[in-house]
Amino acid sequence: MEILTSVNNPKVMTWRSLKDRKGRLETGLFLVEGDRISREALASSFHAEAVLVREDIPVPAGIPEQTPVYMLSGRVFDSVCDTRTPQGIAVVLRMRTTPADGPRLVALDRLQDPGNVGTILRTADAAGFNGLILSPDCADVFSPRVLRASMGSIFRMGLSFPSSLPEELRRYREMGYSVLSSQLDGEPFYQRKNVSDRLILVIGNEGNGISPDVRAEATHHLCLPMRGGAESLNAAIAAAVMMYDLTREI
Amino acid sequence: MEILTSVNNPKVMTWRSLKDRKGRLETGLFLVEGDRISREALASSFHAEAVLVREDIPVPAGIPEQTPVYMLSGRVFDSVCDTRTPQGIAVVLRMRTTPADGPRLVALDRLQDPGNVGTILRTADAAGFNGLILSPDCADVFSPRVLRASMGSIFRMGLSFPSSLPEELRRYREMGYSVLSSQLDGEPFYQRKNVSDRLILVIGNEGNGISPDVRAEATHHLCLPMRGGAESLNAAIAAAVMMYDLTREI
Repeated sequence: MEILTSVNNPKVMTWRSLKDRKGRLETGLFLVEGDRISREALASSFHAEAVLVREDIPVPAGIPEQTPVYMLSGRVFDSVCDTRTPQGIAVVLRMRTTPADGPRLVALDRLQDPGNVGTILRTADAAGFNGLILSPDCADVFSPRVLRASMGSIFRMGLSFPSSLPEELRRYREMGYSVLSSQLDGEPFYQRKNVSDRLILVIGNEGNGISPDVRAEATHHLCLPMRGGAESLNAAIAAAVMMYDLTREI
Repeated sequence: MEILTSVNNPKVMTWRSLKDRKGRLETGLFLVEGDRISREALASSFHAEAVLVREDIPVPAGIPEQTPVYMLSGRVFDSVCDTRTPQGIAVVLRMRTTPADGPRLVALDRLQDPGNVGTILRTADAAGFNGLILSPDCADVFSPRVLRASMGSIFRMGLSFPSSLPEELRRYREMGYSVLSSQLDGEPFYQRKNVSDRLILVIGNEGNGISPDVRAEATHHLCLPMRGGAESLNAAIAAAVMMYDLTREI
């Protein structure tokens, strides 16, 4: 098998470009790093363009026959990876999304921290939510940091990218969904009433919360109790507590 | 007021040393950065040794008269700060902890990610927990990353550092506390029974979970539902969902 030893190899340059949104948009590709997520990627319905293996690592079993495998020297492998201590395996995949669909959805209103977006994706999956709706200006779900925090949930969750989140929420509301806006000036979350079995939980920007035009489309405005002296919760934490409580009975 | 312009000034060197545990242990000091946490620090019961202000920022009001204020040039200020884009104010404080005490405590078993430790501190405060018990080998609560994620909860929460977490848990159990171990092979969390009003929630290491000698002291071994295809939750997320559910009725 060919070993790629030059960081200037055109393939290597393409893979390296996938760290940035520009490179991902130009190629339609993204890259996941690490043992476990690579395994999940290869078992998923996503199309794998290439498997990249660092030369000191044995080529793992279970790679589909038609998928090209490339051996990379340590330096070249490190150059395409975003993590500081890569595990020696990465998979290049074709970007693809299935629209969010189902009775329990999460909407993100300009959520900008990649760790928060990835963690919400992972937690939504675990809590039994069906998909994520992302407003414009959210962190890119195919960025290395989101992928890392999502722990493979990217391969399982539906994702929608409406050009207008308020309009999308209105459409769902008209179909009978409850739209729950998580906001610090909301009503007590645990005393919520008349929440439909079909619902969308909306989580706002880390610094500024939910935007006014998104709030206007909500059927419920809710806040978790803030005891002690804390003034707020991290966005992914608030999302997690609410998601698990909303699925407490399912 | 004197403006410190040399990164080799002895005071500046001491403050810079507080980024590392060694420097904090040698001096008994720690440093918080940013507008909000600095305000909280000055309003807290912690002793402020010094307020550091970058020269382009007006000295904020509300600094106690006896607390020395130093103006620092931009370069010197940046050198003592851990964040990439500091806000121009920092406070140097004397380390101090009040032992965790009360009916609702969280114990961390070798939790190593500073973001997780800080986030759990913040969330425990908000959920109405009274304090944190940290096993040896947890991330240092006075490190810049923990402080940043804790959002000032460090000034309000009791903290205990027993040399043996299993022995500490046994002591509480003998006093009638329920000890809830969060572990992936546990019983369904929402079907828990006979949990006392006085309880300790134990959260384990990110990769390895709860150690066997800690599990052995638990009265309950519990796991949140894992739906979808997710195999686990982030430690701070699992802690948050459980803490808020355990305080649902208070």
